[in-house]
Amino acid sequence: MKTSAKESAPDLTVVGREEMQDVIARALIVHGASEENAAVQAASLVEGQMRGHASHGIRRLAVLVGRMRKGLIEPNARPQLDWLTPSVLRVDGNRGFGPVVAYQAIDAVVARAEETGVAMAAISNSSHIGMLAPYVESIALRGQVALLLTTSEALVHAWGGRGATVGTNPIGIGVPTGGDPLVLDMSTAQVSMGKILDYAATGRPLPSGWAVDALGNPTSDAAAAAQGGALSPFGGPKGYALGIALEALVGTLTATAFGADVVGTLDTDFPATKGDLLICVSLERLGLLGMLPALTAYLDTVRDSAATGGVDIPGDRARRTKEMNDAHGVPVDEEVWALALKYAALKYGHSNKQPLNTRKG
Amino acid sequence: MKTSAKESAPDLTVVGREEMQDVIARALIVHGASEENAAVQAASLVEGQMRGHASHGIRRLAVLVGRMRKGLIEPNARPQLDWLTPSVLRVDGNRGFGPVVAYQAIDAVVARAEETGVAMAAISNSSHIGMLAPYVESIALRGQVALLLTTSEALVHAWGGRGATVGTNPIGIGVPTGGDPLVLDMSTAQVSMGKILDYAATGRPLPSGWAVDALGNPTSDAAAAAQGGALSPFGGPKGYALGIALEALVGTLTATAFGADVVGTLDTDFPATKGDLLICVSLERLGLLGMLPALTAYLDTVRDSAATGGVDIPGDRARRTKEMNDAHGVPVDEEVWALALKYAALKYGHSNKQPLNTRKG
Repeated sequence: MKTSAKESAPDLTVVGREEMQDVIARALIVHGASEENAAVQAASLVEGQMRGHASHGIRRLAVLVGRMRKGLIEPNARPQLDWLTPSVLRVDGNRGFGPVVAYQAIDAVVARAEETGVAMAAISNSSHIGMLAPYVESIALRGQVALLLTTSEALVHAWGGRGATVGTNPIGIGVPTGGDPLVLDMSTAQVSMGKILDYAATGRPLPSGWAVDALGNPTSDAAAAAQGGALSPFGGPKGYALGIALEALVGTLTATAFGADVVGTLDTDFPATKGDLLICVSLERLGLLGMLPALTAYLDTVRDSAATGGVDIPGDRARRTKEMNDAHGVPVDEEVWALALKYAALKYGHSNKQPLNTRKG
Repeated sequence: MKTSAKESAPDLTVVGREEMQDVIARALIVHGASEENAAVQAASLVEGQMRGHASHGIRRLAVLVGRMRKGLIEPNARPQLDWLTPSVLRVDGNRGFGPVVAYQAIDAVVARAEETGVAMAAISNSSHIGMLAPYVESIALRGQVALLLTTSEALVHAWGGRGATVGTNPIGIGVPTGGDPLVLDMSTAQVSMGKILDYAATGRPLPSGWAVDALGNPTSDAAAAAQGGALSPFGGPKGYALGIALEALVGTLTATAFGADVVGTLDTDFPATKGDLLICVSLERLGLLGMLPALTAYLDTVRDSAATGGVDIPGDRARRTKEMNDAHGVPVDEEVWALALKYAALKYGHSNKQPLNTRKG
């Protein structure tokens, strides 16, 4: 399904979930991924797009393809899983797709936490894992509390500092409830670099608190922020403190890089040097399933505390967005979509797999 | 040592660390605490005061004493420690002092994590644990990464909501380095209720973003914020999302209360219904001690990125404050100090212990 773009957004094309999944998976298969791995990696981008985060959606395909072409991603790599102790898993992704490696780690850790109560995975040498929400949501739906952290390229300034020295280091938390899980997925930066670049492209002034220039001064000049400047942390000094604490924690526990040494998720030049840390806790194993009614009631009380509009629990908004997009298709940047179609239409020159015989959807 | 207050702060008395520790411990002993437990609980308040957080300092003594008098704190309770699995400890504090219970849990979890790599404690039925910094710092100094979370009375509004529905739910992270540990200890509220009350007492207008009134509208009226209003989360919707995610996570995993059902750390009427969650990871057990030089170098790079003033790593500022207070004594509210002295001078009527023969310091 390809429909005309809305009048108010002439550069957008509305695409359905199935077509999106299919086109991205084909593009990955063309570049050498197995059908199975392509489906998992494609689903990560699709989920980003469906949940309203285009920055983690189809837009990421170009970098993925570029990295596959250079061998920086080995789409069919087999991650190496080593249990250092009965509850700590070390995962060497062997340059595999981030979501493929992450879901293998999740399956292992979730199964183990059903025995040990708590289990942890420290993942290195794995590509960008995309939005955290789908992972922690999937774990919560399996009855476990999930904490998922990942480091990322240094794009954020220290509080009182200049230059980008801290990653946007997002935090993902999933908690089962009697209804939909609580799903937190948020960057510790105030905004994404993608948004700054959008403002720079259109010459719009940045809102206060988004970024600093090369001297570390707050700026409304998006171009200055993008060139030698840095994103501001969310929430001022507290957001900075949280972001750098997560950088130290994740980098240390995954034995990966810190600060400017974190590369390989935005570029097509370097192996990925970031780390992903996952901790799962089984409610059933710890006899805590009886807590869910009280938690559900509490969250509903908070939803009912709206002053005028509405109050969301983390995950609510993305869930609504996804439902709307499931029903009506997703607006996708036309150029981004055209490139995906182009990748998907390429011959199987890069592939070590048989061509697909059928196209879904 | 009691010296005259500074001219600019006529209601302050400068007190030395040893005298503060001694007076608070005596006050607790007078009300029935063993010398050992009194010393641990007193040290928690002293550390709050020494690190520049008077809200977690001597000011808390009155509530502690009030709770001891009513049997809401059992100062010599023996916490019940049950290993639910080899890596998950359940702790029933039996109404003991928060710091006494917490340090027993820490000792057990740190020792266990040296075997299992990761270990967790879920603490309930324990009194207020005070500042998180001293705990996570002590764990980091033992070579482990620490994550310490605690719920607290609902004082914060949901984003877009009215009324206090979420705790100030602080987050504590300790990470060993080659030098001083990284120590994060921050509330997910923008400011403390104590600060709002200070503004209300002096009639000063609140800065923007600190609080809302009873209708959920942002307010600069401290009295309106304190009466039916609520504290704002730090960092807007992201800080709210983080705070409520921690409330759900900690309440569920410790099988304790949520939202307005969390009581017993600010009042003298109810048993404590909040929970404390601790996760420790041993660097040595996981072969990660070799990461410390790179981490130390990274943090120094960030410190060196100052635009004009200085850049701190979490823990730096409190460390400087503590050093200054160690050298010169701590400014303490005269009324708060007078009350502590009064408590300490009481006869041993409430005590089930022998009187102290000697007074330290």
